[in-house]
Amino acid sequence: MPDILHRIGVTSSPDAVYTALTTIDGLASWWTEDTAGDSEVGGVIRFRFLPGGFDMKVLEAKPAERVVWEVVDGPEEWIGTQVRFELEQEGDFTVVLFRHQGWREPVEFMYHCSTKWATFLMSLKKVLETGEGDPAPRDVRISNWH
Amino acid sequence: MPDILHRIGVTSSPDAVYTALTTIDGLASWWTEDTAGDSEVGGVIRFRFLPGGFDMKVLEAKPAERVVWEVVDGPEEWIGTQVRFELEQEGDFTVVLFRHQGWREPVEFMYHCSTKWATFLMSLKKVLETGEGDPAPRDVRISNWH
Repeated sequence: MPDILHRIGVTSSPDAVYTALTTIDGLASWWTEDTAGDSEVGGVIRFRFLPGGFDMKVLEAKPAERVVWEVVDGPEEWIGTQVRFELEQEGDFTVVLFRHQGWREPVEFMYHCSTKWATFLMSLKKVLETGEGDPAPRDVRISNWH
Repeated sequence: MPDILHRIGVTSSPDAVYTALTTIDGLASWWTEDTAGDSEVGGVIRFRFLPGGFDMKVLEAKPAERVVWEVVDGPEEWIGTQVRFELEQEGDFTVVLFRHQGWREPVEFMYHCSTKWATFLMSLKKVLETGEGDPAPRDVRISNWH
């Protein structure tokens, strides 16, 4: 099954990156302002965008190391897939290895989501380094699919 | 074998996108300023960056539709892989479906290249829409690996 892979490095501590991935305020600062729910392990986080959204069940949350979500509601292609963030400190950087795995087919929507994830991960980097991210609805527009 | 997938939409004609993908000046405007070689089918284009570069053999170039390269020199993980750009007009947009295929393993360098390709494709979009791209050496920095 094809996966979406990304790697960014943030000049910030693993703890700060982890907080941006595991708190509602942190997630709202880089992915979508309309974020709500329970970000503890076993909880479900609801991410909403103008055209719809995603419900993520938190499967793993290991401080400063790893966050794993399972998509429990959202676009049909996403349901059952997993989103993983692995953190590692390298000098002044916290490296984030991102993997959105379990896509059944490399449909055109997967191509779109791959590029869109890249811009949201750059938003994560930006909010941690500058204090201001680009979460939806003021996210980076990449195409006619937004 | 895992692939890197991306999709952008450029508010520009398929012909203009095709030109940016098949001429030395066009390629230099969004990927790396240090681009040289023969961009005709069967030719080899040399893309150079500060730490190294890639030599791409042009396998296919179908105007306003498709460009396919094979990596004939560069980092070991890239050699033998193929880079494909498929163009399609959708309303005011030219959609670019990008695929860098044939990676043998999803190594950490592949994660990095996926995010880096996203930023270069956004540079392609930007140069066509605004007249100014972000090619190397003034490309978008994504991590400690640059």
